[in-house]
Amino acid sequence: MRKVIFDTDPGVDDAMALAFLTRRPELELIGVTTVLGNADIETVTRNALFLKDRLGFEAPVAQGSGVTLLGKHGSHAKHVHGQNALGDVPIPDLIHSRPDGRRGHRMMIDLIRANPGEVTIIAVGRMTNLARALDKDAEIARLVQGVVVMGGAFGTSGHTGNVSPVAEANIAGDPEAADAVFTAHWPVTIVGLDVTQEVVLDVALLERLRDHGGEQGRFLYEVSRSYLGFHQKTRKLDGVFAHDSLAVAYAVDPSLFTTRQGPVRVICGGLASGQTIQKMERAPYPSTAWDPHPAQSVCIRVDVPRVLELFTGSFLQ
Amino acid sequence: MRKVIFDTDPGVDDAMALAFLTRRPELELIGVTTVLGNADIETVTRNALFLKDRLGFEAPVAQGSGVTLLGKHGSHAKHVHGQNALGDVPIPDLIHSRPDGRRGHRMMIDLIRANPGEVTIIAVGRMTNLARALDKDAEIARLVQGVVVMGGAFGTSGHTGNVSPVAEANIAGDPEAADAVFTAHWPVTIVGLDVTQEVVLDVALLERLRDHGGEQGRFLYEVSRSYLGFHQKTRKLDGVFAHDSLAVAYAVDPSLFTTRQGPVRVICGGLASGQTIQKMERAPYPSTAWDPHPAQSVCIRVDVPRVLELFTGSFLQ
Ligand SMILES: [Ca+2]
Ligand SMILES: [Ca+2]
Repeated sequence: MRKVIFDTDPGVDDAMALAFLTRRPELELIGVTTVLGNADIETVTRNALFLKDRLGFEAPVAQGSGVTLLGKHGSHAKHVHGQNALGDVPIPDLIHSRPDGRRGHRMMIDLIRANPGEVTIIAVGRMTNLARALDKDAEIARLVQGVVVMGGAFGTSGHTGNVSPVAEANIAGDPEAADAVFTAHWPVTIVGLDVTQEVVLDVALLERLRDHGGEQGRFLYEVSRSYLGFHQKTRKLDGVFAHDSLAVAYAVDPSLFTTRQGPVRVICGGLASGQTIQKMERAPYPSTAWDPHPAQSVCIRVDVPRVLELFTGSFLQ
Repeated sequence: MRKVIFDTDPGVDDAMALAFLTRRPELELIGVTTVLGNADIETVTRNALFLKDRLGFEAPVAQGSGVTLLGKHGSHAKHVHGQNALGDVPIPDLIHSRPDGRRGHRMMIDLIRANPGEVTIIAVGRMTNLARALDKDAEIARLVQGVVVMGGAFGTSGHTGNVSPVAEANIAGDPEAADAVFTAHWPVTIVGLDVTQEVVLDVALLERLRDHGGEQGRFLYEVSRSYLGFHQKTRKLDGVFAHDSLAVAYAVDPSLFTTRQGPVRVICGGLASGQTIQKMERAPYPSTAWDPHPAQSVCIRVDVPRVLELFTGSFLQ
C-alpha cells in the first residue's frame, strides 16, 4: 500500500479522481493539499472539504497556495467546471470537515518527513505547492517515493495544448513552478494530454456508474453533468476526458502506460508559455538547457480499455 | 510553367534541390538569392555561382543577407555540409558566373514586380531575405503566386527539432524573420521536418543516380558523400534526408503532400526559440497571438514512394 498526498484544485475531474483514489486498496490517502486553478483557493479548499465529507476519507485537508510562484492569481475555469467549480452540484452551507491548520506546502513537507521513502505525491493542479515545498526544504526530493503529475502536452498522438496551441492549463497556470518541479532531483512521471485526452468517460459509462456504482457512482454522474456539456459543445465529444483520474491510475498500475525518458523543461513567458518540452535521449544536437537536468518519465501511450476497466471497476457493486 | 525564385544557402541539400529544380519542365528558374545559414554569405554565394556554372542555368544569382534581421551572424553547419558547405567536392578557384549587382532582397522585389501574379518563391534557407523584401515593399505580398518554405517542425509524425528539441535550423537561424514571413498576407506553404525527415535518399538511390543519372546524377552522388557520413553517424541512417528538394517537389506537384491550415507563429527567444506553432482551426481556446493572422498551409504527410519517383525520375536517363 502506497501512501499518497493528493495535491488538487477541485474541479470536476479532481473530484472524480479523488473518489477513484479513495476506492483503491493499493493507495492510502494521507493528506490533501489544495492549490488555485479551476477556481480561487477559497473555493477549491471549500470543495476539498466538501469532498472529504461526501467521500468520507480521514486524511487532513490543508489549504495551499492562492497565488502562483510569481504572485499572480491567474485565470480560472468556470466555463469548464461550473460556478462552484464542482459542476454546480449543490454544496451545503454547513461543511463538517475543517481544514488542517498548516499551509499546504508545510503539511506536504511534514507528511514526507514523517514517512521517509514511502510517499507518492499525486499532483493534479498547478505545481505551486510542490515548488514551494521544494524551495523550503530541498531534501524532500530524496525522501519521496515519486511524483505523478497530471499536466502538460508533448504533442505525441496529435494531442497539443488546451489553453494555447502548445500549453496545458495546469502547467500554463504556473510555468515557473512546473519547471522547478520537473528539473528537481526526484522521480517525476508526467501524465499529460497525450494520454488523458485518449481516455474518454462516455455517456454510457457515466450512466453505468449512476445505475450500478452506488452512492459514489451517482455522485460522479451528478458532478459530471455540466462538464459533459462543455465537452459536447467545444469538442463534439459525447463524454468527458478522464484527465486527473489518469494520474491516480498511473499510481495504481504503471503498466497501463508507456513512458519515454528525458529531461523536461517548461517555457516561461512568451507565446509558448506553459509548453512542456522533453529532450529525447540521443538527440543529434547539444542542448545545454536540458542536458544537466534529470531524466523524467513522460506518458506517451495508455492502454485505454484496461484503464477504463480499472476506473469503472472501482465503483461498480 | 511557374516562374520560381530560389532563395538558398548552399548547402548539400540546397545543391540537390537546385539541380532537381532545373530538371523540371514545370518550373522556370528566374532568379537565385543567397542567404547566410549553412555557411557565411560569401561561401554560400560562391557556391551558388559554382552551381550556376555546373548546372548551366541562366537565371541571375544575387547575394542576399549576411546577417539575420537582428544583425547576428549566427552559427553555421560545417559539421553537416563540410568545410566548403558543398560536401567538400572540389570547387575551382575560377568561377565563370558573376553575381548580379543587386542585393538579394532587391532582386527578389524587382523580379516579383516584373512578373506580377506569376512568381513562386521557394525558400530553403533562413527567412531573412524574404522578411527584408516584405519590409522594403509590403505590396509584393499580393503580387506573388505563393511562397514555399523548407523549414520548421510541427511535431506531427514524431518529428521534432533538429537544432533543439523543438526548433529546425532554418527557422531557428532567424526566428524574427520567419515570424514576419509566416504572418504576412501571402500564401505560405511550410515543408518542415514533419515531411522532410520522412523522405530518405538512401545509398541504393544515390548509387542509381551516379550510374544512370548522367552528369548531374554523378554530381549529386559526389556532393552527398560527407552529408551521408553525417547522417550515418548521428542518425544511424543509411541515406540522407531530402530536405530542400521537398520544397521543390511541392512546387512541382502539391498533391504529393497533405496539408493542414491555420495561422503559424514562431517563438523568438528563450528555450523554445525557433519553434513553429500552428493554431488548428476550431481549437477550443482563444489565442489572440494567432487569431488575427492569415491561415497558412503546413505539410503534415507526404507520399514517399511518389516523391522519390519524381525526384529520381528527373535525373535518370
Ligand atoms: Ca485538477
Ligand atoms: Ca538550405
